[in-house]
Amino acid sequence: MAFVMIREAKEGDCGNILRLIRELAEYEKLSDQVKISEEALRADGFGETPFYHCLVAEILSAPGEPQGPCVVGYGLYYFSYSTWKGRNIYLEDIYVKPEYRGQGIGSKIIKKVAEESEQCLLSQVALDKGCSQLRLAVLDWNKRAMDLYKALGAQDLTEAEGWHCFRFEGEAMRELAGK
Amino acid sequence: MAFVMIREAKEGDCGNILRLIRELAEYEKLSDQVKISEEALRADGFGETPFYHCLVAEILSAPGEPQGPCVVGYGLYYFSYSTWKGRNIYLEDIYVKPEYRGQGIGSKIIKKVAEESEQCLLSQVALDKGCSQLRLAVLDWNKRAMDLYKALGAQDLTEAEGWHCFRFEGEAMRELAGK
Repeated sequence: MAFVMIREAKEGDCGNILRLIRELAEYEKLSDQVKISEEALRADGFGETPFYHCLVAEILSAPGEPQGPCVVGYGLYYFSYSTWKGRNIYLEDIYVKPEYRGQGIGSKIIKKVAEESEQCLLSQVALDKGCSQLRLAVLDWNKRAMDLYKALGAQDLTEAEGWHCFRFEGEAMRELAGK
Repeated sequence: MAFVMIREAKEGDCGNILRLIRELAEYEKLSDQVKISEEALRADGFGETPFYHCLVAEILSAPGEPQGPCVVGYGLYYFSYSTWKGRNIYLEDIYVKPEYRGQGIGSKIIKKVAEESEQCLLSQVALDKGCSQLRLAVLDWNKRAMDLYKALGAQDLTEAEGWHCFRFEGEAMRELAGK
C-alpha cells in the first residue's frame, strides 16, 4: 500500500513539476502554450525573491514495494491582492496524474495551500492574519474540476458576476511597454 | 489647462486610492464587497514586503488655476506567475474618474504598468528580462473597458478558451484551511 504526502516543493523537484505542468497543459488541450523551462522554474521559485510557491503530492512506497517516492501531483500558487479584501492567494495550477485521481489528493493539495497561505504570511511579514481569499481559474468544459471546487465551497465568478479573464502578451505586451 | 502625470503611488495617496477603489466598485455595482481600510492599504503596499504596487494619475493645475494636484485615477498591480510563460503582472484594478475619461489616461496607466513591470523586476532581482504577460479581469457588461483592452491588444481568454474565475472566501476559506 502506498501513502501520499503533501509537502513543499524543493528545487530538485522542478524537473518533475515541469513534466506535470506539461501533462496538465495537454489535458487542457493548450500544450503549445507551455514555454517555461526547468531552469526558469528553479530561478523563479527558489531564488532570493520567489515568484511562486509550490506543493507536491508524493507517493511513498510501503516496505517491500519496489517503486521509490514518486511525485504525482502539484499545486502552484502565489500571493495576490484584492482592493476589496486585501491579501489573498492565487492557485495558478493544481494537477493530479489521472491514475491517482479519486483519492482526495486534489482536495488535500487545495486545503494545504489554504493552510500554508496563513503560515507563510505569518512568517514573512509577522502579521496576525493571513489571506482572506483563494482564487483560481478553470476551463468551462472541465466539469470534474469545477464540481470539485464548488463542492469545496468556491464560487464561479464568471457565472455569478460576469468576470472575463483578459491577457496581453508577446507583441501586444511589447507594444504596450513601448519597446 | 491641466496636465496629467502618471506616477508611483506614495503612502500618503492611500486615502485617495481608497476613495477611487470605492468609486470603481460602485461603477461595477459590487460596492458592498469593499471591506478594505486605508490602514490595510498602507500596511500592505508600503511595508517591508509590498503585496501590491500602484500608479496614480494626478492632474496638475496650470499657474493661475485655483485647484491643487488631484488624483483622478489609479492602476493597482502585483507580480504573478504563469507555469506556461513565467513571471507576469496582474492588473487588479484600473480606474479613471468619469469626468476625466476619453483623454487617454487609462491607456497611459496600462502602458506605464507594462513599463514599470520590467524596471521593477530588473531592480528587484537583477534579471535581464521582465514579465511576459499582463493579465486582468473585466465584467462582461463593461463594454467600454473591454473595447479599450482589446484595442490595446489584449485577448479575452474567457471567450477564446473558456476560462472561468473561481474564488473561495469567508467561511469556505476557513473550512478549507481547517480553522
